[in-house]
Amino acid sequence: MADIDTSPARIVTAMGERARAAADALAGLPTAAKRAGLHAAAAAIRAAAEQILAANAEDVARGEAAGLSPALLDRLRLDPARLGAIADAVEAVAGLDDPVGAVIDSRTRPNGLVLTRVRVPIGVIGIIYESRPNVTADAAALCVMSGNAAILRGGSEALASNRALHAAFVAGLADAGVTMDAVQLVPVADREAVGAMLAASGVIDLIVPRGGKGLVARVQAEARVPVLAHLDGINHVYVDGSAEPDMARRIVLDAKMRRTGVCGAMETLLIDRTFPDAEGLVGALVAAGCEVRGDAALAAATGIAVADAADWDTEYLDAIASAALVDGVDAAMAHIARHGSHHTDAIVAADEAVAERFLAGVDSAIVLWNASTQFADGGEFGMGAEIGIATGRLHARGPVALEGLTTYKWIGRGAGQVRG
Amino acid sequence: MADIDTSPARIVTAMGERARAAADALAGLPTAAKRAGLHAAAAAIRAAAEQILAANAEDVARGEAAGLSPALLDRLRLDPARLGAIADAVEAVAGLDDPVGAVIDSRTRPNGLVLTRVRVPIGVIGIIYESRPNVTADAAALCVMSGNAAILRGGSEALASNRALHAAFVAGLADAGVTMDAVQLVPVADREAVGAMLAASGVIDLIVPRGGKGLVARVQAEARVPVLAHLDGINHVYVDGSAEPDMARRIVLDAKMRRTGVCGAMETLLIDRTFPDAEGLVGALVAAGCEVRGDAALAAATGIAVADAADWDTEYLDAIASAALVDGVDAAMAHIARHGSHHTDAIVAADEAVAERFLAGVDSAIVLWNASTQFADGGEFGMGAEIGIATGRLHARGPVALEGLTTYKWIGRGAGQVRG
Repeated sequence: MADIDTSPARIVTAMGERARAAADALAGLPTAAKRAGLHAAAAAIRAAAEQILAANAEDVARGEAAGLSPALLDRLRLDPARLGAIADAVEAVAGLDDPVGAVIDSRTRPNGLVLTRVRVPIGVIGIIYESRPNVTADAAALCVMSGNAAILRGGSEALASNRALHAAFVAGLADAGVTMDAVQLVPVADREAVGAMLAASGVIDLIVPRGGKGLVARVQAEARVPVLAHLDGINHVYVDGSAEPDMARRIVLDAKMRRTGVCGAMETLLIDRTFPDAEGLVGALVAAGCEVRGDAALAAATGIAVADAADWDTEYLDAIASAALVDGVDAAMAHIARHGSHHTDAIVAADEAVAERFLAGVDSAIVLWNASTQFADGGEFGMGAEIGIATGRLHARGPVALEGLTTYKWIGRGAGQVRG
Repeated sequence: MADIDTSPARIVTAMGERARAAADALAGLPTAAKRAGLHAAAAAIRAAAEQILAANAEDVARGEAAGLSPALLDRLRLDPARLGAIADAVEAVAGLDDPVGAVIDSRTRPNGLVLTRVRVPIGVIGIIYESRPNVTADAAALCVMSGNAAILRGGSEALASNRALHAAFVAGLADAGVTMDAVQLVPVADREAVGAMLAASGVIDLIVPRGGKGLVARVQAEARVPVLAHLDGINHVYVDGSAEPDMARRIVLDAKMRRTGVCGAMETLLIDRTFPDAEGLVGALVAAGCEVRGDAALAAATGIAVADAADWDTEYLDAIASAALVDGVDAAMAHIARHGSHHTDAIVAADEAVAERFLAGVDSAIVLWNASTQFADGGEFGMGAEIGIATGRLHARGPVALEGLTTYKWIGRGAGQVRG
């Protein structure tokens, strides 16, 4: 009997071959067929609720035994309401506009050749994620709706949940006549599977990591495949001297404290030295339960602790903020250029010229005027969902949803033109 | 005296720092300032014609002594007419629409937040190229016009020419008040400089290789920086049974023979078994001086040599073509899926339904109906110029010019909105 190669690389390659064939089929599916597949997948998830919740209970029990933190266990845990929300989200994606086939532009050349640029799926998307089982269904739905095949690799702590969700999802697809190979789950739970995916140039067209900084950093460092991701969200709110103090307070509080663990949360507050109520602003954060670490001047003025050098480069993801007094918008922009992570930065200002200077000059995926950084979210952008937020400079920036999962091709229709 | 680190990595890092500062400055330049810089660069190239041609004569003499092929020497050689064309091309780029600041889309959210997506430069572009000194000026002009800083690394065989062209170009920029650091030439001629550029993640945002397959393959294999490129142009023309024979002949001859060494040249001819004049089509190629290697059936029917298995995967870039009889459009598409390189493929057909099936189903950057594959060119697409043709699936596909050298950012303008 011949040896069978069961290495992660071989498994990923074999999955990639099936995924490529599925991607070719998905690329040609009409919108209605993709929608029917997703509605059937959502129905199958609802129908399999008992099995999925039982599988999840296994994962949670294993996680508790292994001493996972309460925060991780909470992310892992499903209940009927959360599972219903997962099915709802799949149906919501089915309701989005299909990006495939959209004409980006069209031109008729002097020789009569008609050129159109049309959106097409990227092909095979690899999603590498941690603990939250909802990513299994979310990512699968976004890939199917955008005509891409998905290869999913969830965290080992959620393996039973992901398997049960995945089984229901693809059973639903199959019911509606969509190939089950459209969404595959990597069967191996060890870290070598991630390495094999990252090395799968030509097999996987794009990798999207969803998870903590350790995971994203590893993916970015090792990947031989293009990656859409953000590593840090060191987001700033700059309060200009012209800002209306009540608005500034409302935005700063929301940007930091609405949810402190999201990538769009403010980490550093920059206050124009001419802003009349720096003390009130800092006091409001402190009163809301936020630890504020200030530069020397602000600390002296308000009695908060003094920040150390590392604070300006730290994404706390917690009820902590750094804060500094700066000399106007140019100093704020210089601070952001030095310490920011090109994610989301905001200005609060009544002076439109100052605001436009900031919006033009800050090199971040999202720049906001008089709005909270916590709007950094595909849903808030009207995308209906998101596969992630990208801070790289190629392909897509900011919240990425269906359109970001497409590329385009050029179609030329002629009447016998030659270059001659 | 301390040791000075003159390793290629250190040199590239130092250039990258200057380039980043230049990119920040370029990103904010109004269109008129960039145009003035390019016109001054073109004028400086014309003014320095004597020095540039003398430097080029050195390169050519060195190349002759080193035994470079006549084809390489021809690519390397400048004369007053070619140098004038280089300056003209810089001025042509100055006349193109500025992509920076263009609004891609705009939406007002239910909460009143106004989101616009605006094109911005990518940042620092690395161009790695061979022998043709014109790339020095072309690439520099495209980068400057799109607001990007360029780090150029030309071939060692053209070093004196590139230095002279670069010196004139940046002197022109400086005359017009544009920073000379906008366009830098890597001073080291060895291959380690290429390696340092390919490893310069975070320093260089995008690498564009321009040259032969060896160079592109190395860049794609080693780069830790995103790459825009095409490796092969194994382009097909499929002649459907419904094709008008005269049109088919005209297109096939142009696609193969207009210029055989360009990436848009046809390499494989696929003829529907029901096409009435396969013999005439092959005969026309042969009469035009093309060696045609056929599958068994076509070879038997026309007396041409029989292709071997490798022919279907070969980019000849010469007056050679492979040719096969196929059973209709689906068989042609299957052949292209198996052997193509996702560059440019064309169908000649009178039957519109068949043509649309081909245009939708062939997964290439450019798909054409009743037109020659040699239209694969940024100029022919109305882009005014091109930095290259990309066959990857991310960011940009097909001819890449100014727009492909930009990314975007999201700008949100609010009135105090919080997520709450």
